[in-house]
Amino acid sequence: MIDLNADLGEGFGRWRLTDDEQLLTVVTSANVACGFHAGDPVTMRRVCALAAEKGVTIGAQVSYRDLAGFGRRAMDVPADELAAEVAYQIGALDVFARAAGARVAYVKPHGALYNRIVHDEEQARAVVDGVLLAGSLPVLGLPGSRFLELAERAGLTGVPEAFADRAYTDAGTLVPRAQEGAVIHDPETVVERSLALATSGHVVSRTGGSVAVRARSLCLHGDTPGAVDLARRVRGRLEEAGVRVGAFA
Amino acid sequence: MIDLNADLGEGFGRWRLTDDEQLLTVVTSANVACGFHAGDPVTMRRVCALAAEKGVTIGAQVSYRDLAGFGRRAMDVPADELAAEVAYQIGALDVFARAAGARVAYVKPHGALYNRIVHDEEQARAVVDGVLLAGSLPVLGLPGSRFLELAERAGLTGVPEAFADRAYTDAGTLVPRAQEGAVIHDPETVVERSLALATSGHVVSRTGGSVAVRARSLCLHGDTPGAVDLARRVRGRLEEAGVRVGAFA
Amino acid sequence: MIDLNADLGEGFGRWRLTDDEQLLTVVTSANVACGFHAGDPVTMRRVCALAAEKGVTIGAQVSYRDLAGFGRRAMDVPADELAAEVAYQIGALDVFARAAGARVAYVKPHGALYNRIVHDEEQARAVVDGVLLAGSLPVLGLPGSRFLELAERAGLTGVPEAFADRAYTDAGTLVPRAQEGAVIHDPETVVERSLALATSGHVVSRTGGSVAVRARSLCLHGDTPGAVDLARRVRGRLEEAGVRVGAFA
Amino acid sequence: MIDLNADLGEGFGRWRLTDDEQLLTVVTSANVACGFHAGDPVTMRRVCALAAEKGVTIGAQVSYRDLAGFGRRAMDVPADELAAEVAYQIGALDVFARAAGARVAYVKPHGALYNRIVHDEEQARAVVDGVLLAGSLPVLGLPGSRFLELAERAGLTGVPEAFADRAYTDAGTLVPRAQEGAVIHDPETVVERSLALATSGHVVSRTGGSVAVRARSLCLHGDTPGAVDLARRVRGRLEEAGVRVGAFA
Repeated sequence: MIDLNADLGEGFGRWRLTDDEQLLTVVTSANVACGFHAGDPVTMRRVCALAAEKGVTIGAQVSYRDLAGFGRRAMDVPADELAAEVAYQIGALDVFARAAGARVAYVKPHGALYNRIVHDEEQARAVVDGVLLAGSLPVLGLPGSRFLELAERAGLTGVPEAFADRAYTDAGTLVPRAQEGAVIHDPETVVERSLALATSGHVVSRTGGSVAVRARSLCLHGDTPGAVDLARRVRGRLEEAGVRVGAFA
Repeated sequence: MIDLNADLGEGFGRWRLTDDEQLLTVVTSANVACGFHAGDPVTMRRVCALAAEKGVTIGAQVSYRDLAGFGRRAMDVPADELAAEVAYQIGALDVFARAAGARVAYVKPHGALYNRIVHDEEQARAVVDGVLLAGSLPVLGLPGSRFLELAERAGLTGVPEAFADRAYTDAGTLVPRAQEGAVIHDPETVVERSLALATSGHVVSRTGGSVAVRARSLCLHGDTPGAVDLARRVRGRLEEAGVRVGAFA
Repeated sequence: MIDLNADLGEGFGRWRLTDDEQLLTVVTSANVACGFHAGDPVTMRRVCALAAEKGVTIGAQVSYRDLAGFGRRAMDVPADELAAEVAYQIGALDVFARAAGARVAYVKPHGALYNRIVHDEEQARAVVDGVLLAGSLPVLGLPGSRFLELAERAGLTGVPEAFADRAYTDAGTLVPRAQEGAVIHDPETVVERSLALATSGHVVSRTGGSVAVRARSLCLHGDTPGAVDLARRVRGRLEEAGVRVGAFA
Repeated sequence: MIDLNADLGEGFGRWRLTDDEQLLTVVTSANVACGFHAGDPVTMRRVCALAAEKGVTIGAQVSYRDLAGFGRRAMDVPADELAAEVAYQIGALDVFARAAGARVAYVKPHGALYNRIVHDEEQARAVVDGVLLAGSLPVLGLPGSRFLELAERAGLTGVPEAFADRAYTDAGTLVPRAQEGAVIHDPETVVERSLALATSGHVVSRTGGSVAVRARSLCLHGDTPGAVDLARRVRGRLEEAGVRVGAFA
C-alpha cells in the first residue's frame, strides 16, 4: 500500500499555479499551502472543501515566511520563531479542514525548509516543536533526515517519502538538483520507478545499481505542464499492478 | 457583572506597542492580534500563554490584511475573501490558545473593519460567515450595529461593549473621532463613566443628558502612556463599588 | 497617431500572469507593475530592459499596497500615505528604467485605485501629489476623470485613454463591468472599435448611437488567452489603415 | 575628520523605533530604512525632508525582504534577486531624497545582510551589482569585508566604519555578539573609544592591547534608551578634541 502526495493550493490571490481540481482526483494526500510561501484563505478553503469531498487527506504544507521567494530561499529563522510560525500555519489551515468536516492530518515542510531540515538540527527541532504545539500530527519527510529522526524521537509518526522523478545516489540519497541527471523527465521512466518504489522498496540508482529507498508515500509534482497526466499514469500503473493506493494518515 | 477587554499583542516582529504583561493583570478578556494588522506568531504564543496562566479569556482580534496601515484603512474586500480571512486568523490564534490549555473564546473585529461593519451589511455578514466557519464563537461589537444584529440572527452570541473614554450622542451612538470632544482624556472622568456604564447602563451624553448604553463589556485602551494605570484605576473603582468584574465568555 | 498601452510584469516571484516578451512586440507604452499589487524587482528589471531594447516607453503602474487582492480592493488610504506610496513605486521602477538607459516616462494607476480616482477628489489629489513628488510625469487615465482634471490643473500632462473592448454609454462613460454587455468579447468587433476610436474619436455606444471618446492611447489587455493575438490584430489593422502607432511620451 | 552614521526611519506604519528627529541633530549620515526590514513611504519622506533640512547626508539602508524578522534573519537569496532587491530599495528612497532637494549619497546594508557579506562572496557581489544598477554610489561597510573589497574592485568608493560600543579582537575584527563582553554598555567608555577610533585609528582590544581599526565613519545606535544622549556625548567629545565631524559623502 502506497500514498500519493502532491503540493496543492500554491497560488496567491490573482495567481494560480497548481491544477487543484484535477490533482485531487489522483492523489490521496494533499499538501495544502498555508499562506507563507503561497496559499490565500479563499484558496485554502476551496481546496480543503474539495479534498474532503473527494476523500483526500489534508496536510499542512508549512514554509518559511517568504512569498516573494516562494519559500525557496533558506532563512536563518531563530528556533522559537520557526516553531511558532509552523504552528500558526497549521492552525490557519485547520479551520478550513474542520469547516469541511475533516482535520489537518499531517504536516509537510516546503521547499527550502524541507531541504534545510534534512541536516539542520536546530531548525529540524523547531519544526518538530511547532508540530507538537499544534497537536502531535504525523510528519512527511525525507527518509534518513534529521527531521524525521527528531520527529520520531519526540513521539510523532514520521512518514518517509520518495520521488519517482528524482535520481538517487547509491547511498539512497537524492542527487542534488544542480547536478546533471538529477531530475528524470521521461514519463514512462517515472511511471516504472514509481512502481518499483511502491512494490520493491528499491529503485535503480544513478550508477545503475539497485538501492533501497524506504517510502510510505510518493511525491508527485503538480506545477508543470503534463503533471496531472503523469500523476494519473502513475496511479493507473500502480493499481494495475495490484498496489493499493491509499492515504497514510 | 462587567467584562473588561483590551487589545493585546499589537506588535510585529521587532516592534511592540502594548504592555501585554501589565494589561493581562487588569483585563478579563484579551483581544489578541492575529497577524493581519499586527501580531506575529511568537507574540501570539506568548500572549496566549500569559493569558491562560492568569485566567484571562482569549479572543481573536481579526482585521483587514493591512500591516502597513495597522488595519485602519477600510477596504472593499469581497465577501468570500473577507469571510475566509476572518476564519484564517481565528484558526491561527486558536493553535496558541489550545497549546496554552485554553481556546479562542470570542471574536472582535479591529479598527476599520470594526467601524465598517457597524453599517456595511455585506461585510458584516461576511465577518459573521467567517466566525461561523471557525466554529460559532461569541462576537464582541457595538450595540445597535449591523454586525451584532446579523451575528445574533445567525445564532451567535452578540456581546455589546461600551467605551468609557468616548463621548456619546443623545441617541446612544459614539461621537465620531473627528469631532471635538469625541475622546475623553481626563482619567477621573473615564473612571466615573466606567462605573456608570457598569452599574446603571447609562452615561452622560455630550449634551449633558443621560443616555442608555447597553454594555456587557468595557473596552480599555492599552497603547497610550498611562493606559495601564488608568485601566487599573477603572477596575479598582468598579470592584470598590461592588461590581463583579469577569469575562463574558 | 495613437498609443497602445498594456499592463506588464504583473507576476510576483514564482507566479506569472502576462506574456511580457510578446506584448512588448506590440505595444508602444508598457505599464509596469511596481511591487504593490504585483511586480517583483527581478521582473521589473527584466521588463524594463526588454522595453528599452524594443523602444517601448516605460510607465509606472502604481497601485494600492495589496498583493493579496491584486490591487482590486479599494482602500481608504489617507492622502499623505497614498501620495508617498505612489512616489515610492515610481522611484523603485525608475532605477530599472535608468539602468536600461531609459526613464519612467509616465504614470498609470492600477485597478481599484484607477477606478476610485475617477470620482474621489481626495485620492485623486493624493495620486497627483505622489506624481509631483516623483518629478512631474505625464499621467494616463480616464477622460473626464477627476484624476486627469486635477493632474492638468497641477501642471501635469493628462493623457486620456480608451478601451476598445468595453461598452460605452451615450454619455461617453464606461458601462460598469457588472452590467451585461460591458465587456466586448468578439475579436473582430474589438479590432474595428480600435480603428474607430483611433481615427474618428467616436465609437458606437451601447444604444447604437455614435459617441465621442477622447483618447490619445488605447488600453490593450494582456492577461487573457488570446490577448497577444488580439493586440497584434489591433495594431495590424491600425497600421493598414494608415494610423501611426506611437508612444505619447 | 570623522563621519557619524546611525540607522533611521526604522518604524513601519503604526510602529516607531528610532527617535529620528533627535538623531538628525547629531549624526552626519542617516542610514534610512527603505521598506524591506522597516521603513514605510511616509516615514521615508519625512526623514529625508528632515535630513535635507539639517544638512545630514542620506544613505539607503538596504536589507533582505523580511519585515517579520526586521532583516535579522540571513536568507539564501539568489544573486539576481538580491541585486534587483537592493536596487529597488535605493530607487524608492531616492524619490524622497530628490523631493527634498538631495540625493541618496551612499548605501549601507542592514542586519543579517551586513553580516553575511563580510564573508559571503556571492551575496557581496550581488549587493555590489545592485548598487551599480542604481548608479555607482559609495558603500559603507566593515573594513576587511569581502563587500568593501569587491565594491572597490568594481570602482565604487568603499567607506570603512567602526563601532565604539563593540569589542574588537586583536585581529581588528568584531567580537561576535554571542560572546561575553561583545557589547560595551558603559557610556563613558564608548565616548572614549569613539575619540580613540577617530584620532588614532586604534582602539583597545579585548585582551587589552592596541589594535588598528580603519574607520572613516563611526556607527551610533539609535534604538535603545539613552541612545540619543550617548550619541550627543560622543559628538561633543570629538568636537572638544578638535576632531572635525562631517559626512564622508
